[in-house]
Amino acid sequence: MSGNTYGTLLRLTTFGESHGLAIGGILEGFPAGVKIDVEAVQHALDRRRPGQSHLTTDRKESDRVEFLSGIYEGESLGTPIGFTIHNSNQKSKDYDKLKDVYRPSHADYTWDAKYGRRDHRGGGRSSARETACRVVGGALAAQLLSKVSTTAFVHTVGTITIEKSYSELDLSQVDSNLIRCPDPETAQRMQAYVEELKAEGDTAGGIIQCVIRGVDPGWGEPVFDKLHAELGKAMLSINAVKGFEIGSGFQGSRMTGSEHNDRFDSLGSTITNYSGGVQGGISNGEDIYFNVAFKPIASIKKKQSTVNKEGEIIDLEIEGRHDPTVLPRAVPIVEAMANLVLADFVLRARVSKLQ
Amino acid sequence: MSGNTYGTLLRLTTFGESHGLAIGGILEGFPAGVKIDVEAVQHALDRRRPGQSHLTTDRKESDRVEFLSGIYEGESLGTPIGFTIHNSNQKSKDYDKLKDVYRPSHADYTWDAKYGRRDHRGGGRSSARETACRVVGGALAAQLLSKVSTTAFVHTVGTITIEKSYSELDLSQVDSNLIRCPDPETAQRMQAYVEELKAEGDTAGGIIQCVIRGVDPGWGEPVFDKLHAELGKAMLSINAVKGFEIGSGFQGSRMTGSEHNDRFDSLGSTITNYSGGVQGGISNGEDIYFNVAFKPIASIKKKQSTVNKEGEIIDLEIEGRHDPTVLPRAVPIVEAMANLVLADFVLRARVSKLQ
Amino acid sequence: MSGNTYGTLLRLTTFGESHGLAIGGILEGFPAGVKIDVEAVQHALDRRRPGQSHLTTDRKESDRVEFLSGIYEGESLGTPIGFTIHNSNQKSKDYDKLKDVYRPSHADYTWDAKYGRRDHRGGGRSSARETACRVVGGALAAQLLSKVSTTAFVHTVGTITIEKSYSELDLSQVDSNLIRCPDPETAQRMQAYVEELKAEGDTAGGIIQCVIRGVDPGWGEPVFDKLHAELGKAMLSINAVKGFEIGSGFQGSRMTGSEHNDRFDSLGSTITNYSGGVQGGISNGEDIYFNVAFKPIASIKKKQSTVNKEGEIIDLEIEGRHDPTVLPRAVPIVEAMANLVLADFVLRARVSKLQ
Amino acid sequence: MSGNTYGTLLRLTTFGESHGLAIGGILEGFPAGVKIDVEAVQHALDRRRPGQSHLTTDRKESDRVEFLSGIYEGESLGTPIGFTIHNSNQKSKDYDKLKDVYRPSHADYTWDAKYGRRDHRGGGRSSARETACRVVGGALAAQLLSKVSTTAFVHTVGTITIEKSYSELDLSQVDSNLIRCPDPETAQRMQAYVEELKAEGDTAGGIIQCVIRGVDPGWGEPVFDKLHAELGKAMLSINAVKGFEIGSGFQGSRMTGSEHNDRFDSLGSTITNYSGGVQGGISNGEDIYFNVAFKPIASIKKKQSTVNKEGEIIDLEIEGRHDPTVLPRAVPIVEAMANLVLADFVLRARVSKLQ
Repeated sequence: MSGNTYGTLLRLTTFGESHGLAIGGILEGFPAGVKIDVEAVQHALDRRRPGQSHLTTDRKESDRVEFLSGIYEGESLGTPIGFTIHNSNQKSKDYDKLKDVYRPSHADYTWDAKYGRRDHRGGGRSSARETACRVVGGALAAQLLSKVSTTAFVHTVGTITIEKSYSELDLSQVDSNLIRCPDPETAQRMQAYVEELKAEGDTAGGIIQCVIRGVDPGWGEPVFDKLHAELGKAMLSINAVKGFEIGSGFQGSRMTGSEHNDRFDSLGSTITNYSGGVQGGISNGEDIYFNVAFKPIASIKKKQSTVNKEGEIIDLEIEGRHDPTVLPRAVPIVEAMANLVLADFVLRARVSKLQ
Repeated sequence: MSGNTYGTLLRLTTFGESHGLAIGGILEGFPAGVKIDVEAVQHALDRRRPGQSHLTTDRKESDRVEFLSGIYEGESLGTPIGFTIHNSNQKSKDYDKLKDVYRPSHADYTWDAKYGRRDHRGGGRSSARETACRVVGGALAAQLLSKVSTTAFVHTVGTITIEKSYSELDLSQVDSNLIRCPDPETAQRMQAYVEELKAEGDTAGGIIQCVIRGVDPGWGEPVFDKLHAELGKAMLSINAVKGFEIGSGFQGSRMTGSEHNDRFDSLGSTITNYSGGVQGGISNGEDIYFNVAFKPIASIKKKQSTVNKEGEIIDLEIEGRHDPTVLPRAVPIVEAMANLVLADFVLRARVSKLQ
Repeated sequence: MSGNTYGTLLRLTTFGESHGLAIGGILEGFPAGVKIDVEAVQHALDRRRPGQSHLTTDRKESDRVEFLSGIYEGESLGTPIGFTIHNSNQKSKDYDKLKDVYRPSHADYTWDAKYGRRDHRGGGRSSARETACRVVGGALAAQLLSKVSTTAFVHTVGTITIEKSYSELDLSQVDSNLIRCPDPETAQRMQAYVEELKAEGDTAGGIIQCVIRGVDPGWGEPVFDKLHAELGKAMLSINAVKGFEIGSGFQGSRMTGSEHNDRFDSLGSTITNYSGGVQGGISNGEDIYFNVAFKPIASIKKKQSTVNKEGEIIDLEIEGRHDPTVLPRAVPIVEAMANLVLADFVLRARVSKLQ
Repeated sequence: MSGNTYGTLLRLTTFGESHGLAIGGILEGFPAGVKIDVEAVQHALDRRRPGQSHLTTDRKESDRVEFLSGIYEGESLGTPIGFTIHNSNQKSKDYDKLKDVYRPSHADYTWDAKYGRRDHRGGGRSSARETACRVVGGALAAQLLSKVSTTAFVHTVGTITIEKSYSELDLSQVDSNLIRCPDPETAQRMQAYVEELKAEGDTAGGIIQCVIRGVDPGWGEPVFDKLHAELGKAMLSINAVKGFEIGSGFQGSRMTGSEHNDRFDSLGSTITNYSGGVQGGISNGEDIYFNVAFKPIASIKKKQSTVNKEGEIIDLEIEGRHDPTVLPRAVPIVEAMANLVLADFVLRARVSKLQ
C-alpha cells in the first residue's frame, strides 16, 4: 500500500536502497507455462546499466540479475518470480558529506518530510537504481506478450529533436548509436550537445517516444484504468519524468473535432491515428505511441547554493559520477514499464466477458 | 478489478450507464467525523451539469445527488457513502440509429471488441456522464482537505491561450465567465471561437490548468505511486484527455539542469518551482500545478464517413445535443479528480512512520 | 480499504445503515454476456427477508432489489452492477433509548471505540441488514457458476443436531420446513426448541452446513488465498459467526495421517473426502463441504444489566422485534458468500496459465 | 493477485519453491522509525526450523534470514523490507521418484490441475517451507505491536488435550518442552503419543490455541474485514489447517443468548469473554483467543496406495524426513500470522476517523 507495487493481475513489487546489499523484486501473477529467456532479461538490464558509454555515468556496475524462484526447466511455474541484483557499488564516501544537506530538486527534503529519516547514501530508495528492477519485470512481461513489439527511443534532447514521424524511422536502429536515437543525423547533434553539457558539468533533459505494435483491439478498462491512464501513471512514476502525452497529445488539443476524428477505412482500421491506438481507454488495434518528457538530471557538477537541515544556505558541489542525461539509459525503462502495463491488460482482458 | 474504482485508502467506485435508471457510486474509506456540506457537493455538480449555457450542450439535466448512507447528523460516519444521480434523460431515440454504427474516435468499436456487446444508448458506460459521480466523490474529498485549495481553469482553447503564469491571475474569477477562464480578455476570444465552431457543427479542444495550494510537505509515495503519477493517471482517466504535464512539463525537458534546479531560499521553500511542488514523487510544500490536454469532442454535427458493424462505409450525421467543447464543464471534473488523489494521499501519509 | 469490499476479480462493495434511506452495493468485475435472472435474485432475497415466519423476527420488510446498471436486455454488460434496497423500516423509536447504552455482545461499544460516533438506530452499519446486499451479490455470482450447486442448511440448533452425513440427506428439502433443516424429524425438534426459547425471550445459536458440488479441479490459490481460507473469511465475516471448519475440521485433528489421507481410486477421484474437496488450497473436484458456527443472537428480550456511556451499570430490556435465531435466515447468506468466493476463483482460474 | 500477498496496509509478499535457490519476501508498508531487533526475527525462525528435536523432521536446515533493504542503522526506513532465506537442502533425490505420482491428500494433483506443471521437488511452492517467510514477516510485525503479546501453544494432540482454560496456564512455559504445550503433564502425554506414532510411521493432528493480550478497543473493520474474519483467513491459509474458532466458537453455538452475552462490569470491561475479544468484527479490549485445527500430516511412512499421472493405482512409500506432527513447529507460524493481521489493523485504525 506504500506504492512499491505496480499492476493489478500481474504485479511487480520492488525493494532496495541504492547502497544497501541488494535490490530486487517479486513478479507475481505471471502465468505458468511461458518460456523464459533469461538472457533476454539480462540484455535489457545491460541497456540500462551505468557505464555503458561516456554519455552516461562512469560508474561501473555489472548488474547481474539472479532469479531465485518461479522459473523451472526454462518455463514459468505460475508462482512468484523472485529476483535480486547485487549492489556492487556500496562505497558511499561521496555521500557522507550529503548527510545533512538537501540537494536542489532531489527527493532529500521531501523524503525527510515524509519519513523523518532516510538512507542518505546515494538517494537510497529514491535513487533511479530502483528502476533496474522494473527492467527485469518488464523484460519478463515482454515474454508474455509474444505478438507485441514495444520500441522506445530518444526523440528529443534539449531542443534537438527528430522532425519526422516515427513511421518514417527505422526503429531497428535505436541501438546503433550511443544516444539511442534512430535518426542518425539527429543522433549526432544530440551527442555533441550532451558532450558539451557534460564538459560544463551540466545536464540535459529531453523526450522519449515509444511505439507499440501488435496490440489486439479490446485491451484496457473503460473508466479509471484506461489503457493510456495506466501508461501515463507508469511513465510518470519513472524518475525525472514530468509529462506524458498519447497520440496527438498536447498538439491535438489545438485541432478541431472534424480534423482530429480518426475515420475508419474498414472495420477495425482507421485512416489517421490521432488517438494513438486507444479510444475510450481501450486499444483499437492501431499503433499505440506516446511521448515521455524527462527533466534534466538534478545532479549537476556546477557549484550551486542549497540549504542544510539547519536551514543554512550553503554552497554545494555534488561529487560522484553522474549521467549528463538519463535519456539513453531510460529507453529500456520506458519499454519495461510499457510492457508491464500491457501484460497486465492482456491478463485482464481474459476476464471481461463470459467466453 | 475492472477499473471502476479509484484510490487506495479512499476509494471511489462508480456505476451506471448514461441512459440507464441512474448512475451513482460508493465512496469508501472516508474517515468518521468530517462535517459534510451537502450543498457544496451539489454546487460542484451544478458546475458540471449539461445545459449551463449556450457554450455547452443544450441537454437539460437537473443532476441532483441523493446520499443514501454514510452521513448522519451532518457528519461522516466512517461508513461507505452511497449515492445516486437519477438519469432524467433516458430517451434514446437519437441513439437507435447508432446501434450498428461505429462513430469515429468514439469507444463504440473498442467497446464491442472488449465486451462483445454494449448499451449503445448514448455511450453507455463510456459516456462522460460517468464523471458526474467523480464530481460527487471529489467534492466530498475536498471536505476532508480543509487546508487545501484546488482551482482548475480553462487555460487554452484551440490556439487561444492565457499568456501569463497562474500567479498573475485572479483565480477567484474562474466562474466569472461562461468559458471558465480567469483572464477576461482571453475568455472573450475563447468564447467567440467556440461560438464560431458551434455554428459550423465542429468542436474545440484545449488545456485545463490546475493549481493546488496548501499541501503539506510529505504527501505522495516515492516509487510507483508518485504524487504526480497518480495525478497523471487521474487526469488521463477523464474522457477526452490525451496529455498531462506537471511543473515545467514538456517545456522543462528543453532546459539544462543548472537552469531547472529549484534552489532553496530557506528550509522548505524554493526560489523557482519548475518541479511543480513535487520532488521524487512527494510534495515539497510549494504550489502544485499541472496542465491537462483535452482533444476536441468526437461528436461533431458535420457529416462524416464511418463504418458499420458489417464493415460498410456509410455517411454519418450525429444528432442529439452535444457540447462544442468539454472544457468549461471539465473544470470541476479536473478539480474532483485532483481532490480524490490528494485526499487519498493525506490518509496514506498517516501510516508512513511510527508517530 | 475500510473493508466494505469482498473479492479480488469479482468485487462486491456494499453500503448502507439499517435505518438510512437505503442499502445497496456495486458488483464489479462481473463478466459481460451472462444471462441474468432477476427473479432468482429476488427469490434469494426473499429467503433472507424478515417476517417470513414466527421463527424469525416479526418485522415486515419487503426488501425489493432495484438494479440500476450493468444489466441490459437480460444480459450482463461487463460494467458494474449497481443496486439498492429501500429501507422501509426507518422508524427508530425503539432505538432512541439505546442511544447512550452499550448492549452486551453487540458492536455498540467497539464501534464507538473505533469511530467515535455511530448511527445508533438499529445497529446502523453493524446490523445484519447489510447482509441483504451480500445475498444480491451472491445470487448474481451463482448465475456465473452455471455448473455449480451450492446448498446450505441448518445442521444444528443449540444441542439438536442432524446425526447423518449430508450425503444421506435430501438437500432439495431444505425449504420444506421453517427452520431450513432437510432432516424432517430433526427439523421438528429444532422448531420446538426455538419456539420455547422465543417464549422465554431468549435466543439460540447453531451450525449451518454448506455443500458445494460441481467445482472443477484447479480453483483456488496455493498460498494466502487458499480456497478454504477465503471461504473461512467469507463465513466469519457474517454477523454472529464464531467458527468455521472444512472437511473433517476439528474432528479431523483427532485422527492419524494413515486414517485421514484421502486415497485415490482413480485419477481425480478419492475414496474418502476428509479434505472437503480442497487440497493445498485448490479444489480437487470432490464435494466441498464446511460448517459455520453461529453464536446465539445477542438481542434477547430478557432483562439484563449493561453499561451506558457514562460507565453506569443499568438495567436493559431490549424492545423491538428480533429473531429468536438467525439460522433459517442465514442459510441464503452462507450460500451467497460461498458463491461470491467461488465466482471470484473461477475468474482467477482464467489467468493462472498461458493457455 | 495470485494470492502470494497477505495484508492491506502492511503487506507481506512471499516467493520461493522449497528446493529452489532461496525463498524470501518483501514486507511493504512497514512504517519508518521502528527499532528492529534482527535477532528476535532469527529467534522466531529458529522456533520454526526443521530438526529442532526428534519430534520434528530430522532435516537440518539452518534457515538464516538475510535482510537486503528497508532497515538502516537499526531502524525501519519506511521502505520495503526485502529478505531471503537460502535453501540449503536442495538435494531432491528423494523426490525424483515422485515426479509422476500424486500423493494422497497432498497438493500434487490439484496443483497440476491448476497450473499444468509443477516443481515436483519437495512440494515446490505448496511446501510448508513457504511459511518460514511468514515467520520473518510476523516477527517484524510484532515489533510494531510493542504493547501486544501474542502467545500460541499446542492445546491438543490427537485426543490428548489441555483440560484447563488458558487463564489457568503459565504461558511463559510454552517452550519448556519439545511439544510446546504449557501444561507439563499434558505435554508429557502428548510427547509419548507422538513418539508412538513416529515409530509406526504415522502422524498426528491437533489444535493450537493462541492468546493475544494488549489489543486496544477499536481494531478491526465492521463488515467483510472483521478482525476475526482476517484472523480466520490467516490461520486457514497455513498448511494443514482445517478449522478456526474464536472465543466460544463451536461450543458457543450450543448456548442461549442469555448465557452467552458478555455483560459489562464497567465501561470497556466484561465479566465473561465468550466473544473472544471481538464484537462486530472490532476488538473490545478483552483478550483475543482462538483455536486452530491442524489435520495430521499427509506424508506418512506407512505404505499406502495412490495413483500416478497415467491413472494407474500404485503402491507408495514416501521416503525423506518428515515431521510426525506439525504442531510444535506451527506455533511460531500461528503467532506470525496473528501478528501480521494485528499490525495491519493497527495501521488501518489510524485512518478510520478525522482525529
